[in-house]
Amino acid sequence: MAGGVGSRFWPMSQTAHPKQFIDILGVGETFIQQTFRRLSKVCPPENIYIVTNEIYRDTVKEQLPQVKDYQILGEPAMRNTAPCIAYAVYKIKQQNENANIVVAPSDHIILKEDEFVKVLSESLDVVSKNNWLVTLGIKPSRPDTGYGYIQFSQADSYPENKSLKKVKTFTEKPALEMAKSFLESGDFLWNAGIFIWNVNTVIEAFDKYLPEVNNLFAKGLGLYNTDKEPSFIKDTYSMCPNISIDYGIMEKADNVYVYISDFGWSDLGTWGSLFENKEKDENNNAISGKNVMTYNTKNCIINVPNKKLVVVEGLEGFIVAMKGNSLLICKMEDEQYIRNIVNDIKIEKGEEYV
Amino acid sequence: MAGGVGSRFWPMSQTAHPKQFIDILGVGETFIQQTFRRLSKVCPPENIYIVTNEIYRDTVKEQLPQVKDYQILGEPAMRNTAPCIAYAVYKIKQQNENANIVVAPSDHIILKEDEFVKVLSESLDVVSKNNWLVTLGIKPSRPDTGYGYIQFSQADSYPENKSLKKVKTFTEKPALEMAKSFLESGDFLWNAGIFIWNVNTVIEAFDKYLPEVNNLFAKGLGLYNTDKEPSFIKDTYSMCPNISIDYGIMEKADNVYVYISDFGWSDLGTWGSLFENKEKDENNNAISGKNVMTYNTKNCIINVPNKKLVVVEGLEGFIVAMKGNSLLICKMEDEQYIRNIVNDIKIEKGEEYV
Repeated sequence: MAGGVGSRFWPMSQTAHPKQFIDILGVGETFIQQTFRRLSKVCPPENIYIVTNEIYRDTVKEQLPQVKDYQILGEPAMRNTAPCIAYAVYKIKQQNENANIVVAPSDHIILKEDEFVKVLSESLDVVSKNNWLVTLGIKPSRPDTGYGYIQFSQADSYPENKSLKKVKTFTEKPALEMAKSFLESGDFLWNAGIFIWNVNTVIEAFDKYLPEVNNLFAKGLGLYNTDKEPSFIKDTYSMCPNISIDYGIMEKADNVYVYISDFGWSDLGTWGSLFENKEKDENNNAISGKNVMTYNTKNCIINVPNKKLVVVEGLEGFIVAMKGNSLLICKMEDEQYIRNIVNDIKIEKGEEYV
Repeated sequence: MAGGVGSRFWPMSQTAHPKQFIDILGVGETFIQQTFRRLSKVCPPENIYIVTNEIYRDTVKEQLPQVKDYQILGEPAMRNTAPCIAYAVYKIKQQNENANIVVAPSDHIILKEDEFVKVLSESLDVVSKNNWLVTLGIKPSRPDTGYGYIQFSQADSYPENKSLKKVKTFTEKPALEMAKSFLESGDFLWNAGIFIWNVNTVIEAFDKYLPEVNNLFAKGLGLYNTDKEPSFIKDTYSMCPNISIDYGIMEKADNVYVYISDFGWSDLGTWGSLFENKEKDENNNAISGKNVMTYNTKNCIINVPNKKLVVVEGLEGFIVAMKGNSLLICKMEDEQYIRNIVNDIKIEKGEEYV
């Protein structure tokens, strides 16, 4: 899933280059490149499908030159995760009646790749034998209020793998007090938004909980992987509701299992989480950019092009981000304003800046 | 005098474009253009001579297209103000045996031009009748530690103009306590570095207090304003000591008078003084740049190109300055570090950045 147009990392992420297509960590790979490489350890690369907005097709090809056209599923509109997944699931169904599928966002960070591969391989094995919807839950290390949580049943484990537990509830981003009690209880995990299921299990779930979406995409069987696919998809999306897979299916289904995982995961949804995941200098600054000089500067994240000479003096706890003709200087604790700021920019300065 | 290569306004002022050649106030004129226009009210423009480093000759021509080549005195090296003034004084002497001269820096701000013109005109009249060295002293409005001070004798005034007082002492930049007592005494003025004298009076002073400089430039009589001037000046500067007119002459001479002036003057030697002199928005931010958006931001000076979109959130009391490939973010109260920072840049990144 590579369809996001996130504004939270403005100006690093902009509509023309959202987060999945940038190397915000400065590791030499964009997020989608990391994700593709990682998933290639679980299945043949030619079996990886990328669902993205049609406007990013060329960007995907540029960043993943090994990918063939058929592997890129271009969405004509943004309709959240349920239609995105339905599209991919039916297209795969047409090629492989009994496929086992991993669904993963393209813009997360995963530090322990071996552990990640192990969890996915075991989960694929599980869903090939059980008609379960498996989701990955991350052991929480802090009462983060930026994530959704999954509550699991301590008693109800998969006999062959105690890390797989039956899910009781899904919870949206909680308030801090709630998040703290989640952490204390030991029954809650972060929702990583990564799913593993057999194609027929998930189609059954769509049929049961989102029949209007299911019916739209089921009609395409026979058209997927033909030259009629694009126009069919264009029509289908225009009729499709905007709905997430969590809200539409996962929260309602009674055959959801969570794999209790620990593979160094973050969705890096905020500058703060990016800061946590970056290497710091001796003054706890996370700096990207080859010509950055700091004086009396602490706890800052500085993200600027290599060719820019940037001197920062006396700054504490700020984001400094520069890209193209845009510069952001924002107090890290106020980063939730960035969304509003980006809206203001759209209105006051025009779409070309965001 | 337009020879400076000031680093205090980095990155706005850089070696290729020091302060006198930039419009740091955003008024539509660079400092040297303002100065030239202002002095044109006191004497014919063709009588204005600009002493600058040879490397800035083309910049002067660009910014002052009305100026002829003979009006630009190119210095082959930086030797402080005494040689600069000696060069101009002898060149003028060769053209006009009895000239009355104004010497002024090219990068100061003067808000009350009429008052300035009045002070200069009266001073020129005074020095045409008295062999005095006249300097302009500004009534201090605060105990500024960034300026030199002039102590005058309350008793010893020029009978025809009580604003002209005999000078007792010159003082370098004082500590704060000292500056406060200067202010309280009422006998101290800021040294504006603007001088008025007859050509013969100042040559006498050079002869008496800086004979080695005087002898060097006196040898050029007969060569100034001929095609032999450039090579003579090149040789002369190579032998010339580095010395200021204040230290070399003004502090030692006993015929120095100060004109107590009040014409809205600042040497704008610091970002802080620039901030004082700029228009502020409702949050006391002084902003140059057409696409600057501020949120929760107070008491900042933001100086960026019009084409850059700059968003600042949560910042107080900072300088944000962007030019070319350079960005400075510096706490305003730490601006004295900028000199050191510029030295570090020279060493670490190379001369091309400063």
